[in-house]
Amino acid sequence: MDISSASITRYGVCQSLSALAAGNLGPVELAEACLARAHQHNARLGAFVDLRPALVREQAQASAQRRRERVLGRLDGIPVAVKDSFDIAGWPTRAGLPRVQAEPATRDAAAVTRLRAAGAVLMGKTALDEGQLGTHGQSPHYPPVRHPLRPTHTPGGSSSGAAVAVASGMALAALAGDGLGSVRIPASYCGLVGLKPTHGEISAVGMMPSARRLDCVGILAREVRDAVVLLQVLAGYDAEDPFSRKRRVAFDLPDLEPGRLRVGLLPDLSAAGANEPIQAVFSQALDTLDGVLGQQRMVDFSDWDFARARRAGLLLMEAEMLHTFAADLVDAAHPASPRFRRMLDYARGKSAADYVAADRMLDVARLKARRLFAQVDVLITPTTPQGAYPIDWPEPANAADLTAFASLAGCPAVSIPMGTLPDGLPAGMQLVGPAGSDLRLLELAEVFAAALDAVPAFPLGDAGG
Amino acid sequence: MDISSASITRYGVCQSLSALAAGNLGPVELAEACLARAHQHNARLGAFVDLRPALVREQAQASAQRRRERVLGRLDGIPVAVKDSFDIAGWPTRAGLPRVQAEPATRDAAAVTRLRAAGAVLMGKTALDEGQLGTHGQSPHYPPVRHPLRPTHTPGGSSSGAAVAVASGMALAALAGDGLGSVRIPASYCGLVGLKPTHGEISAVGMMPSARRLDCVGILAREVRDAVVLLQVLAGYDAEDPFSRKRRVAFDLPDLEPGRLRVGLLPDLSAAGANEPIQAVFSQALDTLDGVLGQQRMVDFSDWDFARARRAGLLLMEAEMLHTFAADLVDAAHPASPRFRRMLDYARGKSAADYVAADRMLDVARLKARRLFAQVDVLITPTTPQGAYPIDWPEPANAADLTAFASLAGCPAVSIPMGTLPDGLPAGMQLVGPAGSDLRLLELAEVFAAALDAVPAFPLGDAGG
Repeated sequence: MDISSASITRYGVCQSLSALAAGNLGPVELAEACLARAHQHNARLGAFVDLRPALVREQAQASAQRRRERVLGRLDGIPVAVKDSFDIAGWPTRAGLPRVQAEPATRDAAAVTRLRAAGAVLMGKTALDEGQLGTHGQSPHYPPVRHPLRPTHTPGGSSSGAAVAVASGMALAALAGDGLGSVRIPASYCGLVGLKPTHGEISAVGMMPSARRLDCVGILAREVRDAVVLLQVLAGYDAEDPFSRKRRVAFDLPDLEPGRLRVGLLPDLSAAGANEPIQAVFSQALDTLDGVLGQQRMVDFSDWDFARARRAGLLLMEAEMLHTFAADLVDAAHPASPRFRRMLDYARGKSAADYVAADRMLDVARLKARRLFAQVDVLITPTTPQGAYPIDWPEPANAADLTAFASLAGCPAVSIPMGTLPDGLPAGMQLVGPAGSDLRLLELAEVFAAALDAVPAFPLGDAGG
Repeated sequence: MDISSASITRYGVCQSLSALAAGNLGPVELAEACLARAHQHNARLGAFVDLRPALVREQAQASAQRRRERVLGRLDGIPVAVKDSFDIAGWPTRAGLPRVQAEPATRDAAAVTRLRAAGAVLMGKTALDEGQLGTHGQSPHYPPVRHPLRPTHTPGGSSSGAAVAVASGMALAALAGDGLGSVRIPASYCGLVGLKPTHGEISAVGMMPSARRLDCVGILAREVRDAVVLLQVLAGYDAEDPFSRKRRVAFDLPDLEPGRLRVGLLPDLSAAGANEPIQAVFSQALDTLDGVLGQQRMVDFSDWDFARARRAGLLLMEAEMLHTFAADLVDAAHPASPRFRRMLDYARGKSAADYVAADRMLDVARLKARRLFAQVDVLITPTTPQGAYPIDWPEPANAADLTAFASLAGCPAVSIPMGTLPDGLPAGMQLVGPAGSDLRLLELAEVFAAALDAVPAFPLGDAGG
């Protein structure tokens, strides 16, 4: 294999691991290529809010040293970006807030510990919505975060910087949080693979909480198989996470024969707010997939109010954020934006009984998912009701309406690129499966992604800096 | 075996099952003996709020018929009382509220369905605190519920009537709910066995919710082995209960050799409000158990504020009850008591953020339990800080302080009789184990109960009516 440094950064995780194992590529070379991309494009795209090249080089050199003797783990030498809602020891966690003098974290988040133990090279911390609350991907306290294929547009949020870093070759994958869609939405807008695992599957210790019963540690990657490797590294029981469980659901479900797959579809995507271009691309993707979809069934979502479910999820988040961000909200010297304070004030005006009403939506979603997955093996929808839009447009209220169901139900969901919208930007397809079926869902996603072959062009050219 | 009808009703479930199997006793005879006890004592003790002798006889006759051919299930012919917070099809569920014209339930609660499927004879519905909120065991809308050993005293609550029915021979066991201690507290006061299983172990569908993350379907019985049989009948996955799980924790834990048991004890029972007589009886019980306790270790509860945890649990309940009892609270023709409305008004004045703060106590308790049960196999405490008290005394605020921890942590807990207080009334010992260890915990409870041999005298004499 002959590798030009120019093309290194368009490699995925698995492809790079092969090249590393074959000796055609070294960890330092790979990290330098990512740093070069960041050096060239980050000021304009705003992906990283905290990038420390010296530390990246130090980790890459340590990996190179290890690789000469014995590989540390499954990600040894792979540059991974980390959303700035996860603690990295010695770094401040700012979560999009104006934490000018934030104390550095004293220990790594559990997921970061697992990345390090697998040999990953932590590239730096990526941008997100203020307080990780939103899908717009922007925080007024940090530079704008721009879509790498169209810099006038947002990459989507809240994991905006993580998506840009991965899509533009500044990292090969990213660790990010998904409460109602924060990983899947930017994956859809940017043409990436975005995984929100079963709730509790990856320890959330050291990840800034937004709503503990929704929060999942998620993964952004360029290829489905990359997400599989990261999930295997990250998943596992953590006695310190109250929502972590010893695995209870079969991770070795019997393989479904392609023709016998039962695929659930929503009878009315307009009810979920999906716009016409998204519906057209989705419909075309289903046609392309026809040979691998097996039986297609319309599932009954007439009892599911998409907007109501999203509002319930948002209330759970905002109420909990009043706790999580209590110190930020009283820091008069570095105030949060009026928009952020207004959203949290909304929750402040809500009663305990209102919270209970929203919380019961979790039960409704869980029971609905059980009934649903007794009838079908997987639910397929567009990931988002719309594609990426100009940064100066207002955030669409319904951006998370198609992703919220899996969050409320605690089910795994993955977004894969499904095609190109008329404006030339990508759009994602979401696969949702029953709780615990994460690996099986990724197997299906791999089959679908191969059939769709809809990965967008690598942006910004191949220049490695 | 020769059985005088006079002594029938002091039999436990297992003893009666033996007699039924041997043909020394018939279901009709057993049911009539219980009905006779109820006929003689219920007006005075207030155990049942809804007793329908014709239906009891019908069920007993059907059981007798079956037993001549083929036994239906493990409880065929056993009279079981049901707390009036569970639905029985065709009966109103009143939950201690003034529901004068309550509509009858349209279907049985899941636990009632399982009782019926096992052949149990449903005796009737038992009294409880108003809206199942309290430990005093009394509702102003129903007759007083009196301790069978001392009718001036309360049997404790909220499952007061269920405890009285079992303790006095009107039923052999009872189905009851336990949110913060509602089964274990009256078990302690009345000298019964009270089991609160792992959260989600028994389906709560059709049980009036108080706080869904605390509510457990529990069991009151006279002997530990009776509770084992009922648990085996009642436990299991229910797709309609969002908190039901397929069993995830070993139900066949390796037997602990008695000498190798690690028993956890609280270093300071006064911190939990236990009064001196309770501490003395508990201390004496530990002495008696010395040979079976194995290693005894003081566990650290210095980080656990008993009163704060209880208040958090109460807020979760009261906030959720604003929903559960919304219709009752606006029924001007049949108003709930000022006390009940005051308690719910307290929650009404609380914010969503207050609820979140209380809700986080669940995480704290779950993590504490994980650390605790890494160090010890079982935690042993008195079940209640005090014994039964006169009905006209105010309810002690701390009655649930020793039971709340297992509720918040979702762990199984069982109360067994441990001895007699200076006033002649019984007191219970609580065993708490890790989530999923229910059967193992009952095995231990059986060993301890045998060693303590502290079952109180059967009250009210042997007269069968």
